[in-house]
Amino acid sequence: MRQFLEKDLEGLDKIYRLNLINSCTGYKSANLIGTRSAKGQNNLAVFNSVMHLGSQPALIGFILRPLTVPRHTYSNLKATGYFSINHISQNQIEEAHHTSAKYPEEVSEFDQTELDVENKLSQEIPFVKDAPVQLACQYINEYLIEENDTILIVGKILALYVQENMLGEDGWIRLDQGNVVSINGLDGYALPKLLDRFPYARPKK
Amino acid sequence: MRQFLEKDLEGLDKIYRLNLINSCTGYKSANLIGTRSAKGQNNLAVFNSVMHLGSQPALIGFILRPLTVPRHTYSNLKATGYFSINHISQNQIEEAHHTSAKYPEEVSEFDQTELDVENKLSQEIPFVKDAPVQLACQYINEYLIEENDTILIVGKILALYVQENMLGEDGWIRLDQGNVVSINGLDGYALPKLLDRFPYARPKK
Repeated sequence: MRQFLEKDLEGLDKIYRLNLINSCTGYKSANLIGTRSAKGQNNLAVFNSVMHLGSQPALIGFILRPLTVPRHTYSNLKATGYFSINHISQNQIEEAHHTSAKYPEEVSEFDQTELDVENKLSQEIPFVKDAPVQLACQYINEYLIEENDTILIVGKILALYVQENMLGEDGWIRLDQGNVVSINGLDGYALPKLLDRFPYARPKK
Repeated sequence: MRQFLEKDLEGLDKIYRLNLINSCTGYKSANLIGTRSAKGQNNLAVFNSVMHLGSQPALIGFILRPLTVPRHTYSNLKATGYFSINHISQNQIEEAHHTSAKYPEEVSEFDQTELDVENKLSQEIPFVKDAPVQLACQYINEYLIEENDTILIVGKILALYVQENMLGEDGWIRLDQGNVVSINGLDGYALPKLLDRFPYARPKK
């Protein structure tokens, strides 16, 4: 095993540390968050931090980096109160990653990639067409993480769309049936295949 | 696509909704968190919510469910100030899942599974032997998510151990080289394989 102690981490080259620390927590979710500005401009951005917060009410969260530069996803979801979360499938990874390029506010990432907008439910919530799972969310709250000025956004699920072939009888979404990917670090895209599913665990007697 | 609107979600059977909402955010990290009580009793519990919060300082987070029942991980990390995060590899999934069974505080999950303790760095931080990536963390802060009484725990990385074959020249940890798994919902374990890795994205001209 290679060992990095705290003093070793502090002494690392910036890019090396960025890669190491971003990949050391395990696999991350891979999503495109869609928003619309008050002027009606669509925005799309890749995120690897969307998380489950609770099922009743149905709450999700994601982490925003510090607001030291303009964050279009943040300004849009604050302006309209809404955003979409769209799973990235295997054939969309290159286009999805390109949404991380810094385009000015008046440019839509939908126009700069092969990803298409899907309009449904509300004019204020642009979805990614052909995403295997799509969520429509309402902004609920935010928490400033004081240790590094990142922000936890909390959203409520208003609508959930899922490909029929992924949905099990018990409500479980089998993600590999939609070729949903996972992110390794900042820029690695991996395709998971289901190994097993286990029943509710009870103590051994 | 199957559609669930907010009123549909509210009307679902509890288990169906639990499965659906837990699997609708995409793949999750798969980790075992190790702690030691003030009395020296080891605890090990599977978590699917460990997240990256920042690389400088190196901060991670994870979500704890409401403290309506005893949470040994929480009481231990508050008592000692420390915890370990251990990646789950393919051959450990059944044992890892079993740590979710509700054992009394005086029982160590290390004794109820085939998972072995590894002692290094500090007596207060039990690691999982043979985990492909291990982090030693210090408890830093916590944020109560008021919407559902879950808690975001913030920790600082004190030490990082990684299998040599997973570590790239640029610091990136290639998780599939350690057969690290990912969690689909509450109880599905999937094995990802790397598809591609992309350079830093820049706007098209």
